[in-house]
Amino acid sequence: MTQALPTKLPDLSSLRQKVGAALTGFLDTKERAAPGIELLHLTTALRGLLTGGKRLRSLLCLYGWQAAGATGDMTAAVRAAASLELFQVFALVHDDVMDDSDIRRGRPSAHRALATAYTDSGGPGSRAQAHGLGAAVLLGDLALVWSDELLRTADLSPGRLAQVLPLVAEMRSEVMYGQLLDLQTTGRLTGDVDTALHVIRYKTAKYTIERPLHIGAAVAGATPPVLDACTAFGIPLGEAFQLRDDLLGVFGDPAKTGKPILDDLREGKATVLMALAVQRASTAELKTLRELVGRSDLNEEHAAAVRTILNSTGARQTVEEMITTRRAAALAALDNAPFPGSTTASLRRLALDATARQA
Amino acid sequence: MTQALPTKLPDLSSLRQKVGAALTGFLDTKERAAPGIELLHLTTALRGLLTGGKRLRSLLCLYGWQAAGATGDMTAAVRAAASLELFQVFALVHDDVMDDSDIRRGRPSAHRALATAYTDSGGPGSRAQAHGLGAAVLLGDLALVWSDELLRTADLSPGRLAQVLPLVAEMRSEVMYGQLLDLQTTGRLTGDVDTALHVIRYKTAKYTIERPLHIGAAVAGATPPVLDACTAFGIPLGEAFQLRDDLLGVFGDPAKTGKPILDDLREGKATVLMALAVQRASTAELKTLRELVGRSDLNEEHAAAVRTILNSTGARQTVEEMITTRRAAALAALDNAPFPGSTTASLRRLALDATARQA
Repeated sequence: MTQALPTKLPDLSSLRQKVGAALTGFLDTKERAAPGIELLHLTTALRGLLTGGKRLRSLLCLYGWQAAGATGDMTAAVRAAASLELFQVFALVHDDVMDDSDIRRGRPSAHRALATAYTDSGGPGSRAQAHGLGAAVLLGDLALVWSDELLRTADLSPGRLAQVLPLVAEMRSEVMYGQLLDLQTTGRLTGDVDTALHVIRYKTAKYTIERPLHIGAAVAGATPPVLDACTAFGIPLGEAFQLRDDLLGVFGDPAKTGKPILDDLREGKATVLMALAVQRASTAELKTLRELVGRSDLNEEHAAAVRTILNSTGARQTVEEMITTRRAAALAALDNAPFPGSTTASLRRLALDATARQA
Repeated sequence: MTQALPTKLPDLSSLRQKVGAALTGFLDTKERAAPGIELLHLTTALRGLLTGGKRLRSLLCLYGWQAAGATGDMTAAVRAAASLELFQVFALVHDDVMDDSDIRRGRPSAHRALATAYTDSGGPGSRAQAHGLGAAVLLGDLALVWSDELLRTADLSPGRLAQVLPLVAEMRSEVMYGQLLDLQTTGRLTGDVDTALHVIRYKTAKYTIERPLHIGAAVAGATPPVLDACTAFGIPLGEAFQLRDDLLGVFGDPAKTGKPILDDLREGKATVLMALAVQRASTAELKTLRELVGRSDLNEEHAAAVRTILNSTGARQTVEEMITTRRAAALAALDNAPFPGSTTASLRRLALDATARQA
């Protein structure tokens, strides 16, 4: 059933609503088919985690669909977009387990919330932490396999599905490779900027920007030039997006980011920002960084000392410049992209928002 | 390319070899396409985990394929079988993380091995445990998405794939539901035999026996009567298999099972065996069970006291009888199944081995 629609996509809040409705409908079905009420612990947790995000990946998926010239019935594209949101919940939940983070989007992280729910339901307190961790691993697993199911049942033709699924497979392998690099580099303070850039290319640029565009475009049967233009726009924008995230992780306002401001420094995240500071630090500054970064008891005073060094070495300024350069490259790629004008306009606005954001 | 083959499947070791070759070939491809050598940490770990198993699920998948009357080129069926082995590695690795198990198949569990590898490569010892856990979560995730990819690229026709994938989706949701129940019941000592049976139906009977048969049968385009016969055979056999596993977990020989004999009791696994003992225990026996089962410092002496109660209450004997009843039901289902005679013979042998095994 194709409906005639204008080439311009519905506005942002209407798009987010469509994706939200697809997710709600899918979880409703899963709850109705549940073999036991215990599953509702997990579906309820999923519903909670699916609210409050930026829905960045699903918007990009829908823009990708439009970039490939699609108009009309958006149902399959919306379902593909919704499946990316479910995948992102998987990634967040497991990421928080790996980093042992307490907070996500201003609320307790999944493993913390599930530990609390366990003791609230009468479980022994001595097992609460182990239970929370186990249940969160499982919750992530379920989000992952359900994201796959949501996409597979999106009513795509076999031909289109055959175009979409390899891109999804690439995305999944890439984000896991990025996570692996992240895990291996976190806690080891180095001046290796190249490795830090390699990590964000896989962990963010491809996963958050390029692949959602690709997947939406493939739902619409995109040609190689459209996919290439998505890459030319997506990779620099994705790098800029993560560089902004790294700055917000140290200099941001926790009330706006919903993320404790000391976490990145306590974990010793191997960001480009930190690698630049290590490269340029004086002997005394380097000694301070080695003492403080990665300390689990790092406090506000320690963080202030680190921030001073990130400023004095010019690392913060250089990262700002890297963001500017990459944003410019992304916008230039848009100028040459074979996309409809309305898509270009939407992507331009998104690029500006994503790189100038405060949360 | 279909080759004429006798209806009898190649012998067991040759089948295992075919599945092993499919797995090795897949991982070789992944290593060649890896975006960086770091990925070899994970592929090497996967290769290790893929050796040494019983390959029970892949054998059942191939028997399912034969049960549906297939002969000739086994390539797609072997790939589907191999994808179940990769899925099983995912399940084991995450299960060991959830249970915090030290040992799997006689060797250090994945998160322990990855923690050791991290410090060996110069990582700080203070982060070793957290790193091992994070890397194991990631390793499991990768095994899961790759199992999907291995199946999807098995060269099945779109029609066959559409028959297979919903069964795979069912299997994945079911095993996760089983894991959830397991997680919620572990550490709470009760006499609830029904719940314990519900857990093993999802966690083992469907996952380990019924669904692998179904998936293999669907690869061959099975009709509903064939699928129903797989269920009639698979569910009782799967329950018997897990009941045997529970007995081995308390009474087995660790040198044969490759699993520390005290783990199930230390974790307080809510097995049918334990539920029966709780139901029938005297006040004094119940007090002993409550004191000992689920204690992380449970020792051999404690275990001996628990074993005495499992014997004296007749719980062990009842579980043996439950195994006998279920094995008989599975064998009776085979007598009525519309399978080729050679398949029936293979499944009969497998049913006897799986329920009488010592490891």
